[in-house]
Amino acid sequence: MTLRVGVIGGGQLARMMIAPAVELGVELSVLAEGEGMSAALAATAVGDYRDAGTVLAFAERVDVVTFDHEHVPQPVLRALVEAGVAVHPGPDALRFAQDKLVMRRRLAELGAPQPDWAAVSDTSELRAFLDDHGGRAVVKTPRGGYDGKGVKVVSRPEEVADWFADFGGEALLAEELVVFRRELAQQVARRPSGGMAAYPVVETVQRDGVCAEVLAPAPGASEKLVEVAARLGMSIADGLGVTGMLAVELFETEDDRILVNELAMRPHNSGHWTQDGAVTSQFEQHLRAVLDLPLGATDPTADAAVMVNILGGPQGEEITGRFAAAMDAHPLARIHTYGKAPRPGRKVGHVNVTGDDIDEAVYEARAAAAFFD
Amino acid sequence: MTLRVGVIGGGQLARMMIAPAVELGVELSVLAEGEGMSAALAATAVGDYRDAGTVLAFAERVDVVTFDHEHVPQPVLRALVEAGVAVHPGPDALRFAQDKLVMRRRLAELGAPQPDWAAVSDTSELRAFLDDHGGRAVVKTPRGGYDGKGVKVVSRPEEVADWFADFGGEALLAEELVVFRRELAQQVARRPSGGMAAYPVVETVQRDGVCAEVLAPAPGASEKLVEVAARLGMSIADGLGVTGMLAVELFETEDDRILVNELAMRPHNSGHWTQDGAVTSQFEQHLRAVLDLPLGATDPTADAAVMVNILGGPQGEEITGRFAAAMDAHPLARIHTYGKAPRPGRKVGHVNVTGDDIDEAVYEARAAAAFFD
Repeated sequence: MTLRVGVIGGGQLARMMIAPAVELGVELSVLAEGEGMSAALAATAVGDYRDAGTVLAFAERVDVVTFDHEHVPQPVLRALVEAGVAVHPGPDALRFAQDKLVMRRRLAELGAPQPDWAAVSDTSELRAFLDDHGGRAVVKTPRGGYDGKGVKVVSRPEEVADWFADFGGEALLAEELVVFRRELAQQVARRPSGGMAAYPVVETVQRDGVCAEVLAPAPGASEKLVEVAARLGMSIADGLGVTGMLAVELFETEDDRILVNELAMRPHNSGHWTQDGAVTSQFEQHLRAVLDLPLGATDPTADAAVMVNILGGPQGEEITGRFAAAMDAHPLARIHTYGKAPRPGRKVGHVNVTGDDIDEAVYEARAAAAFFD
Repeated sequence: MTLRVGVIGGGQLARMMIAPAVELGVELSVLAEGEGMSAALAATAVGDYRDAGTVLAFAERVDVVTFDHEHVPQPVLRALVEAGVAVHPGPDALRFAQDKLVMRRRLAELGAPQPDWAAVSDTSELRAFLDDHGGRAVVKTPRGGYDGKGVKVVSRPEEVADWFADFGGEALLAEELVVFRRELAQQVARRPSGGMAAYPVVETVQRDGVCAEVLAPAPGASEKLVEVAARLGMSIADGLGVTGMLAVELFETEDDRILVNELAMRPHNSGHWTQDGAVTSQFEQHLRAVLDLPLGATDPTADAAVMVNILGGPQGEEITGRFAAAMDAHPLARIHTYGKAPRPGRKVGHVNVTGDDIDEAVYEARAAAAFFD
């Protein structure tokens, strides 16, 4: 009874499932988009995830199919399910991660706290939303956005006139521009049979719309906040029927509310700290969850864990060329790289540091990551 | 400048280098003895490590060659060095791990504390050693022994008459039967350029000559013991010119001395706890050391870490079939398996548990491992 998990997508999230898969004894296969992807070591197939035949053939050799990203089209997902393949998260859940309007509607039904929002089909509808919300709003394309792409803060409807045109009259999502104290993220794992486990809520720091740092647990978080965030995460995982890891990105407002910003149904950048700072990493937890195995403990193993992304990396050099200097200066840093060539703004790795003191851990992790600039 | 490490031998020690290699961004290749070995995922070649041509061809695609075991013959090692290949540990160091008589002589030169010993060439020499040591002794074949094989406690020379015959007149190693309180192990990493790092000394529990459990740090160890063991380990690593990980197995005597029992020049069972209980695991440390990169911190990440081996495993079943029950009962257990079929006495995996209290961690780890009996 070898346990076989197939991952669609060969990026760094698939790559980071390799370590726990090898240690646990799970056979991991990857359908990569091309040669030389991050998860090349486990890539057993290369092909187009938008092609049902390719994906069905890949699925034949595994017990469960899961994902490195949320971009597999619904018809392909449905074809897998119809062929009797276990797919986690399944198409019904993934729909909420693929379309932000569908997600907002469902969260509203669940009563989850979220920013004011509206589906706006043209500039006049957007103008009305702006007028109701102090003249500024966040406009998002419902589908296809990531890492700040497909997201724009606007004060005039004309700023997204091209998006209305590109989307052929389909509605865009307009959201209240939330005045927040900071951003948080809640990781939750859910099994197909229903069992759930929540990690402690963390603080995330974004730069230019991209996650730059994560502080775990969220500094100064009260027990109540930890409890409220965990419950919210679990109610969303349950309400949306998520299987595997779910990341709920949150705003913490100036008036002490938490509002749901975005969802991701897979291991997520805001959970990389768990590799070195929790009993069970989010990558092992995802494997356990999609295999419907009992979930591992989510307890932190240190008082503080900090993750700092290596963004861009040393241009024109290989990242490994910086190892000697970084390791010499920072023996406490745990360095993770993704096998990707440096390119401005690209996530090419991250550094985790754990310790007794969050401020010291932040300093150490930032300093170590800076060696890769 | 991709960093490329080649491992000779496809067992679980090579397998457990995969996770840190992937995370760090080191390209790992393995020369496996056959198909379907523990380290199959990274096996880029299958062949006989006793054949110089096979090993030289394997070495062409890597920056440094290292080992899953100490059995590569000296002529093959020498051929690698002569061909300009970086080999860590090198032949001069490995000689001490390959021949226990050579090791004993060298440790005596270094002044390292060890049991009384003698090279005995026939039954009459062994009888003289027995007479001088209370009528009992441990006899070891200098080469080829492991996990209790090639080791015998004797009170009459005739008990190893066949060994004298098998070794064609070559001397055997006779050692004083040490009355010890417990067994300890000291892990040290050493770079080719000389830098060293020592882990805290641990207690090892053997059953039938095989490592069964490891408690880290060694319970009740005084600061002085930790310091003495670390210094001893580093002086041996330095004195023997070891590069990579060195494990020094020790006796702690009833009268508070530590004596060197055995050496291993590679990651070692007594260091598996570092995967989940230290800032840098012995497997990452070995990669760093053989690549001559700065060593990672060896600090424990918890007050207590316990490793319990899964010996034998569920006969006639696959080990993964026990995951659900074990994980359900023990969410704190970190389960590691080696992709090996269960067989009586065989090391097929281990469980690590970390926590605040060593007794609780022992209980938890033993109970979790017992699910795989």
